[in-house]
Amino acid sequence: MQNFDYMTPTRLIFGKGVIEKLPEVMSQFGKKILLAYGGGSIKKIGLYDKVKSLLQGYDIYELSGIQPNPKYDPSVISGVKICKENDIDVILAVGGGSVLDCSKAIAAGAKYEGETWDLISYKAFAKESLPIVDIITLAATGSEYDAGGVISRTETNDKIGYVDPHNYPRVSFLDPTYTFTVSAKQTAAGCADAMNHVMEQYFAEDTTLLNDGFCESMLKSLMVNAVAALKNPEDYRARAEMMLCCTYGCNGILSLGNSGSGWPCHAIEHALSAYYDITHGEGLAIITPRWMKHILSERTVDRFVKYGVNVFGIDKTLDKFEIANRAIDATYEFFRSINIPMHLREVGIDESRIGEMAHHIAVNEGLENAYVPLTETDLIEILTRSL
Amino acid sequence: MQNFDYMTPTRLIFGKGVIEKLPEVMSQFGKKILLAYGGGSIKKIGLYDKVKSLLQGYDIYELSGIQPNPKYDPSVISGVKICKENDIDVILAVGGGSVLDCSKAIAAGAKYEGETWDLISYKAFAKESLPIVDIITLAATGSEYDAGGVISRTETNDKIGYVDPHNYPRVSFLDPTYTFTVSAKQTAAGCADAMNHVMEQYFAEDTTLLNDGFCESMLKSLMVNAVAALKNPEDYRARAEMMLCCTYGCNGILSLGNSGSGWPCHAIEHALSAYYDITHGEGLAIITPRWMKHILSERTVDRFVKYGVNVFGIDKTLDKFEIANRAIDATYEFFRSINIPMHLREVGIDESRIGEMAHHIAVNEGLENAYVPLTETDLIEILTRSL
Repeated sequence: MQNFDYMTPTRLIFGKGVIEKLPEVMSQFGKKILLAYGGGSIKKIGLYDKVKSLLQGYDIYELSGIQPNPKYDPSVISGVKICKENDIDVILAVGGGSVLDCSKAIAAGAKYEGETWDLISYKAFAKESLPIVDIITLAATGSEYDAGGVISRTETNDKIGYVDPHNYPRVSFLDPTYTFTVSAKQTAAGCADAMNHVMEQYFAEDTTLLNDGFCESMLKSLMVNAVAALKNPEDYRARAEMMLCCTYGCNGILSLGNSGSGWPCHAIEHALSAYYDITHGEGLAIITPRWMKHILSERTVDRFVKYGVNVFGIDKTLDKFEIANRAIDATYEFFRSINIPMHLREVGIDESRIGEMAHHIAVNEGLENAYVPLTETDLIEILTRSL
Repeated sequence: MQNFDYMTPTRLIFGKGVIEKLPEVMSQFGKKILLAYGGGSIKKIGLYDKVKSLLQGYDIYELSGIQPNPKYDPSVISGVKICKENDIDVILAVGGGSVLDCSKAIAAGAKYEGETWDLISYKAFAKESLPIVDIITLAATGSEYDAGGVISRTETNDKIGYVDPHNYPRVSFLDPTYTFTVSAKQTAAGCADAMNHVMEQYFAEDTTLLNDGFCESMLKSLMVNAVAALKNPEDYRARAEMMLCCTYGCNGILSLGNSGSGWPCHAIEHALSAYYDITHGEGLAIITPRWMKHILSERTVDRFVKYGVNVFGIDKTLDKFEIANRAIDATYEFFRSINIPMHLREVGIDESRIGEMAHHIAVNEGLENAYVPLTETDLIEILTRSL
């Protein structure tokens, strides 16, 4: 077991109708709010109007149009500009993980004199950040309970996971009813995203019985509840449990004391969505079983056996490689069963840029330190298998 | 699933040798420290000297002799007096849960004008608290990661669970090597304490697959690692995982969205140790299986089945009451196997004050709202079965 230094100071306010606490929460941060949101789904579900009516008397500035795989230019740059010009006190991010990720970069950039990209690319480090409050409308990324965000810069095909402890949201509002209208496609992608967050922590060295059990519980719960939510999108219990599961995805609580895995599937997927702007959770679902097959070996087989037996209930008396392969197949089949496109070609990616992407990942992502180190050749193989 | 409002802002610094970060951590709080500790075991293991040498240059005031089941008089009263008279900036609690619980009451009392007992008994509420840093030497209570503490007042046989969000430790240092010298008796009692914390959350209504899985994982991990630590007290991995498990015991993360159980075994045990000053974990181990037998019914049997199958691996094809009874027996046998005295008479408690204790619990503990409501008659029965 490894040493660790851990804290998640975010307050979670969870459940139906909790939005009513918004005025009380916002009142502690000041009068000038940057309201950040995406393409307008929050208007469709009435949340935009609700927020505005709850926050009468505040000075609200707006940044709308934040896209999935949020872009440095224009979203982060515009947000920072609004904050600096108007002396914003607090950011209210309303939407999914992309809106929140973007808001984290803005929060740090607003308190930094230089160009925000310096922070995102770790050339400089924030000394402080604007406080962030969020209202989450999609169960997926876990950004509501961690200090990270992923920002893309189109002209360089960069998609960087930017983590800074200053960027923990102060308060996250999680009302499962806001996810009732999430499409089947996005519900499935959110489930795959969260499942992959667990797997990226489970497939590591030096794990504990406790962490393994937490991870296995989360995977089982995500599968059961995603299926239920897809069957009945207004199943409150299923939406609520999915939302709770997703919240734990990335703040480290599932892997305290583990060696760390290097998050290889995320590293690969970040290239896919930087080059092709695909849905993050779908990219992860496609990559994950191919990565698993690639790293299965005498060294790693016991983890796959544990995974197969405890998550999928595979007969533990079988040969260990048989269990491992069945577990990987079960992973693939689960994603397929919730209608995720499971080939890169299905999401518009062909072989033409695989070499380029593999090179980009190998140079930028440090996968020589992954649970199973991955070279450029390994990456080409995984990507080619995923076509 | 119920709504909830949740936050645990404590920073955990975990692992061998982490004490070296103490000066850096303390420097953010000020120069005047109240060093609180117990009966001197921290001197035996060299921790007292280590702390003093790391904190040269600080003004250190000491409160020693804090007992298990920490007492309002003299410990809390003396601590508050030292803090007020010397304008203490921060409390450094070094020891087990009792030292930390006592320090929480002191931290609140130091910033309150009236008598600290007003706060503990909820007649008044703290507006602020002194910051607390702790160094934990016993894996048991989880006080290092929650806002609660238990304080006893001998003259009235009161033992109150005092919870206030101001009292979260700011930083908890958790070095498993400090638990190498913990006696077999205290190791077993710590395991029982933590296991009971889980059970008090698991036996509730409206639980989720996720919470159930977290709880079951913790119980299994605690049993495996307590047995390993008892066999080899210097088994770092076992001590470390026990310590990590215990940390999650009481901050609510195992039961977010559950209905709440009313913590009935704790309510009963608080009376036992208030009247007889027994070891808390032993009292819990004695009560738990008797409480389980008492509440087993058609309404509750399915939870016991889940518990038996998932925690003890009992054959799920058996009759449900057969599974439930085997699970309760397995609970008893596990505690017995780690040499916990499993009868009240073995810890010096006879039938003479059972009526009095049952009355005290029924009047003060609100068990009419427990998972299975308990009347004075129920309490007499549970206590009598435990003799």
